[in-house]
Amino acid sequence: MAHEVSPLMLPLPAMPPVPGVAIATGAAGIRYKAREDVTMMVFPAGTTVAGVFTRNQCPGAPVDWCRAALPAGRARALLVNAGNSNVFTGRAGREACAATAGAMAKLVGCKPKEVFLASTGVIGEKLPTEKYVAALPGIVAKTGADGWHAAARAIMTTDTFAKGATRTAKIGDATVTISGIAKGSGMIMPDMATMLSFLATDAKIPAPVLQAILKRGIGPSFNSVTVDSDTSTSDTVLLFATGATKHAKVPAEGGPMLRDFTRAVHAVLMELALMVARDGEGAQKLIRIDVTGAVSAKSAHRIGMSVANSPLVKTAIAAADANWGRIVMAVGKAGEPAERDKLSIGVGGTWMAREGELVPGYDEAPVTAHMQGREVVIQVDLGLGRGKASVFTCDLTHAYIDINGSYRS
Amino acid sequence: MAHEVSPLMLPLPAMPPVPGVAIATGAAGIRYKAREDVTMMVFPAGTTVAGVFTRNQCPGAPVDWCRAALPAGRARALLVNAGNSNVFTGRAGREACAATAGAMAKLVGCKPKEVFLASTGVIGEKLPTEKYVAALPGIVAKTGADGWHAAARAIMTTDTFAKGATRTAKIGDATVTISGIAKGSGMIMPDMATMLSFLATDAKIPAPVLQAILKRGIGPSFNSVTVDSDTSTSDTVLLFATGATKHAKVPAEGGPMLRDFTRAVHAVLMELALMVARDGEGAQKLIRIDVTGAVSAKSAHRIGMSVANSPLVKTAIAAADANWGRIVMAVGKAGEPAERDKLSIGVGGTWMAREGELVPGYDEAPVTAHMQGREVVIQVDLGLGRGKASVFTCDLTHAYIDINGSYRS
Repeated sequence: MAHEVSPLMLPLPAMPPVPGVAIATGAAGIRYKAREDVTMMVFPAGTTVAGVFTRNQCPGAPVDWCRAALPAGRARALLVNAGNSNVFTGRAGREACAATAGAMAKLVGCKPKEVFLASTGVIGEKLPTEKYVAALPGIVAKTGADGWHAAARAIMTTDTFAKGATRTAKIGDATVTISGIAKGSGMIMPDMATMLSFLATDAKIPAPVLQAILKRGIGPSFNSVTVDSDTSTSDTVLLFATGATKHAKVPAEGGPMLRDFTRAVHAVLMELALMVARDGEGAQKLIRIDVTGAVSAKSAHRIGMSVANSPLVKTAIAAADANWGRIVMAVGKAGEPAERDKLSIGVGGTWMAREGELVPGYDEAPVTAHMQGREVVIQVDLGLGRGKASVFTCDLTHAYIDINGSYRS
Repeated sequence: MAHEVSPLMLPLPAMPPVPGVAIATGAAGIRYKAREDVTMMVFPAGTTVAGVFTRNQCPGAPVDWCRAALPAGRARALLVNAGNSNVFTGRAGREACAATAGAMAKLVGCKPKEVFLASTGVIGEKLPTEKYVAALPGIVAKTGADGWHAAARAIMTTDTFAKGATRTAKIGDATVTISGIAKGSGMIMPDMATMLSFLATDAKIPAPVLQAILKRGIGPSFNSVTVDSDTSTSDTVLLFATGATKHAKVPAEGGPMLRDFTRAVHAVLMELALMVARDGEGAQKLIRIDVTGAVSAKSAHRIGMSVANSPLVKTAIAAADANWGRIVMAVGKAGEPAERDKLSIGVGGTWMAREGELVPGYDEAPVTAHMQGREVVIQVDLGLGRGKASVFTCDLTHAYIDINGSYRS
């Protein structure tokens, strides 16, 4: 687990308290020794919640739990453990969810279905429920306003750095805060691979409005990031709104008064998603793929993902090799409309190939120089329409093999 | 290019002449120095041909050339170069095809459209047509019956061993031979990634029948092999039938008299496809994934491919890590019908998880022992229906990164 910190690491920003959110972390010894592995947040009555989950057909028991709880739109607590994902654990997994949510509900004084759960770590091992439950009272006793940084660290598994982001926004004359943490560095691919992210705000937002804002923000952020094309069974993004700060009442349909708030939520989502790409297992370079000229935005997204998931493209970028032929290949294999003789490929602002041919007098030097940096931008123009999308990934290096050939050992 | 020979290498079998096929190889210096890089076969009048090509939307010029020539069903020559794929070369690429096929046609005394072309190597660089054409007369002069082994070597690029297979079959009382060669070790994924394969037989088979036999054989062989999920722009399989051996006339609709012949063609295809998996870039282990209990054969194939293309599964196998949770994840991400609580996962004949849970008393030792071998079998049973499929891949190792971070240098 002790991998070198990613060279693309960003430091945690200052994360002030979010009114209404009480946080604590602690050690239950679920898998890791000598580190905190449990994170909890406690919210006041009236807190609303929105969530987005993995589309993997074999989700973990906590994902099933949250999906069942979400329609009520109410939350009083979040409880997360690292080290064991409680995935593919059958009836024991369901029982573990009921037991931990039940214990937490008693401590908080709410219904079990108002406790949201997430687990991350090894698949297929039973969650040691007794240990976990036994640790909860001590952790609840420590809850306070200032735990965001500790929480960002306590949810990590193979992450090499803690991930957090925060923004403020105006709702009418009031200022609210939106803060979030995330974990994830491998098995990252839409939809939501081994990635957990928890956001909270002190705004008072009806649950359906909150859900719509979250869902719209996931597309260009977490669902546009891929590390290895693998999709986790546990991916979860939850957004809690405590309503602890007074502001003009948000109508049931949301509307223009939430414009700044929505922008801020989306900015936090994007910042967290990019941190996940920056911590991609073995990543040495952050890669952005800008696709333009596709027949639709959806087609552009798929083509971008095909490039972002191509091992041949990712290894070439790791070697700063301006091998644009592999980009052509990856565009062509996407199964989306593409015409070879209209296709243009560029790197770092230099077009290498235009309309199906190498640009006359093409000079590889500036491209190679760009590729030797930490952030690489690939441009793909299909020349067919106005669809565009940007997706994010990282390069594929020896460290990915090291990390994933030894995760459980 | 000088990578260590795959530990999964199989030696070339003895490959006797195929009546009607004249082969030669030679060096045109297209990219490589001091090795043969041109392969040709010359066929008698009346030779029929079948072909299957990449579904990549940005195919190389030679693929376009062959697709246009194929409907006539007639072939007099095959001309292949290694080192330059003539892909994404625009008008120059089309002109290079016309020039090389034209030159070859003059030497053989046929129409240019009876010359089938293939190129493999770097994408996006113009084929040095003059050098190539200048080398042809000297190579044609050497054509003879015994060149199969030299041809298998001359079409290699990143391959670490030459690939060939041969079978005989009865058509009525006559015995015919089916021989084939293949190249490919990366960018291998359906449909037909950076993979070239050329088969020839002395049987006399109408072109439409030949095409049907080839097409049916591709599904379980080349289209069930993946190395890295990348799909080449050049993949081509061609099957030539010279008709040089007398046998009972094959009717236009084929039929039962071709049962043995079909089986032999399919056996050659399967053997060659497995050799490509065995030479997967950086491969240390050959992996077979047997999927059963899916809702259909197509669904089983897709689930198998999802497992076979998962970097997390492939790195775990490289490390002989019995991480069945990653297999669950890869099944779940396939987007095919799967129910977690009916799913069973096994390795090497040992069921690890049954119907959504770890098998009670599961002992990892025999699984780990199996995974330490050179050939690993993964079993996935969906418990939903009768659909089944087997797919083949290799593990993902440091050598893959080495090879693909330096291919052009």
